[in-house]
Amino acid sequence: MKIKYELLTNDDRARYGKLHTNHGTFETPMFMPVGTLANVKTLTPEELKAINSAVILSNTYHLWLRPGEDVVAKAGGLHKFMNYDGPILTDSGGFQVFSLAKKNDITEEGVYFKSHIDGKKLFLTPEKSMEIQNKLDSDIAMSFDECIPYPATYEYTKASMERTLRWAKRGKEAFNNENQSLFGIVQGGAYPDLRKLSALETVKMDFDGYSIGGTSVGEGKDVMYQMIDDAIKYLPEDKPRYLMGVGEPFDILEGVERGIDMFDCVLPTRLARHGNAFTRHGKINLKNAKYKEDFTSLDDCDCYTCQNYTKAYIRHLLVAKESLGGRLLSIHNIRFLIKLTEEIREAIKANRFLEYKKEFFKVYGGEEDD
Amino acid sequence: MKIKYELLTNDDRARYGKLHTNHGTFETPMFMPVGTLANVKTLTPEELKAINSAVILSNTYHLWLRPGEDVVAKAGGLHKFMNYDGPILTDSGGFQVFSLAKKNDITEEGVYFKSHIDGKKLFLTPEKSMEIQNKLDSDIAMSFDECIPYPATYEYTKASMERTLRWAKRGKEAFNNENQSLFGIVQGGAYPDLRKLSALETVKMDFDGYSIGGTSVGEGKDVMYQMIDDAIKYLPEDKPRYLMGVGEPFDILEGVERGIDMFDCVLPTRLARHGNAFTRHGKINLKNAKYKEDFTSLDDCDCYTCQNYTKAYIRHLLVAKESLGGRLLSIHNIRFLIKLTEEIREAIKANRFLEYKKEFFKVYGGEEDD
Repeated sequence: MKIKYELLTNDDRARYGKLHTNHGTFETPMFMPVGTLANVKTLTPEELKAINSAVILSNTYHLWLRPGEDVVAKAGGLHKFMNYDGPILTDSGGFQVFSLAKKNDITEEGVYFKSHIDGKKLFLTPEKSMEIQNKLDSDIAMSFDECIPYPATYEYTKASMERTLRWAKRGKEAFNNENQSLFGIVQGGAYPDLRKLSALETVKMDFDGYSIGGTSVGEGKDVMYQMIDDAIKYLPEDKPRYLMGVGEPFDILEGVERGIDMFDCVLPTRLARHGNAFTRHGKINLKNAKYKEDFTSLDDCDCYTCQNYTKAYIRHLLVAKESLGGRLLSIHNIRFLIKLTEEIREAIKANRFLEYKKEFFKVYGGEEDD
Repeated sequence: MKIKYELLTNDDRARYGKLHTNHGTFETPMFMPVGTLANVKTLTPEELKAINSAVILSNTYHLWLRPGEDVVAKAGGLHKFMNYDGPILTDSGGFQVFSLAKKNDITEEGVYFKSHIDGKKLFLTPEKSMEIQNKLDSDIAMSFDECIPYPATYEYTKASMERTLRWAKRGKEAFNNENQSLFGIVQGGAYPDLRKLSALETVKMDFDGYSIGGTSVGEGKDVMYQMIDDAIKYLPEDKPRYLMGVGEPFDILEGVERGIDMFDCVLPTRLARHGNAFTRHGKINLKNAKYKEDFTSLDDCDCYTCQNYTKAYIRHLLVAKESLGGRLLSIHNIRFLIKLTEEIREAIKANRFLEYKKEFFKVYGGEEDD
């Protein structure tokens, strides 16, 4: 079965809805934690469920290299392999591949690049990306697209966007897994007419959902919001919209305001590994000496970490390089973004999203000490 | 309140009993996981309870350096600091200190040595070890002793053992925490008459329990068993006996056979970090290529890891350096030793300990592939 998006309430452009998947029904807007290598770093599926996590994201490129899609397929697919019975979204591999490829390694057929593990030369095409994702058997697969950096010339952006459309078509034709959904990706850089063209042509192909790609690649915040505005108005109301690689609270709120339903980002786990935590009052770095004897909880929060441990203890674990420290912070940081989306959904339902957004930043917008 | 040991059944020299502590009553023989820096590496207290863990061990030397015993005391003691409401045993710091000190840094007053973190010169005495442990507020503190390497001359062993007796006396006098118990440590190296003398003199001081120290320091297995035999016969029946630093299944079984009640070792978590697992059929290394497509569980075991994951998945995590791999193996490896002691207790109660020991090794004694 394909996923199905159900729009329940609008608050101006912000949307509250439900995403029906083969692995449960979940509310949107939602934040999706990243489990690159078939695990959300340091955490178990039970811990993700305890913080009300729904869809998680896994990376096709990384799983292609290790353990290999055939191993995952033999295990019975990604859900069985990693023992996670919630929905999983896989990216196309494109984002990683383009960060490893040189410009003239990009051909009409696909992309040549070198493995980040052993430098081995590899070739990824739309068909191959679909084949790997079909074998991984995630709930949602992503089209193979070229993610260009910012800034880029109009000429290059146009040519790349048009190739991405051809790749999307090839991928859709090669796609072969009736239990899996496929999302199209809108490109077009910072050029409104290219975003429009990309959106219209991608929608014509009738995907199960749409992503706005090519954001968070070096452009400023205002440019990113403009990119969303330029694309989203051409996307159908009855399909989910996904903003890739976005996890800062401010960006999530700006995205929701513009009609985005799904977000993903490595930020909460990456911050955790470096000792940083989201709090209601902004980000803090727990390694800071001022927390040495701070026996209060990290944040006013319902997560396992905040309910059971003090800043002083987490700081001790981080300073002593004990991995439990990063694990406890990962739980909290992911919970923080998921709680944010829970509050966003309540605000949309109550038709007070913009008010909520203002209230959130009145508290959150303070100084950051990291 | 001091701990109390209750001997319930003997099977020849093997003992089944109960240890009553301020943090619950637990059966012996028991295996105690090591939580060096106020956490059993990668695991939460809840995970330890789920595998039926009882006493855990924490290291005085490490906590003295980071976060410092005063921080722990301000948190309300080690239990509150790390959010663990089961019993905790702290070592004296001696073992680590002697591995960092040179021979002429050992004086009658105490030991000079350099911090393993920043090379700073430090001085540890029996009184200081007690002061730190009193502040940490563990359930069981250990006497400050000199742990000598093997082999050592009779002359040095005798002088060291006598100094350890004087240090035990000084420590006991300085000890100042009525909710904490203090164990004495029998030294004497591989010399039966020195072991006897050390045991008799230590017992005269009337500690709450006794440890046999100076084992697992390079001597052969037979020498270690002889050291236990030479000391244990002089220890009182109504106090617990603790063999420090021992965690190989064979050694645990040999220790129990000789009347030991408590064991501790970093082995299960250290093995886990290197990808090794205990199994009923001996140790295996999960990084071995033969497990790449092995979709069976690690072992016939009731732990979370074995109930939920395959060897192929754990291998993938280890190969990809995802710390969840070591976490899953730590859960299993600790559970393995705790399950072993559960079976040992049942065997003693049924008066068939030696039979059980033989059965265990008939299966376990196979080839090891690491």
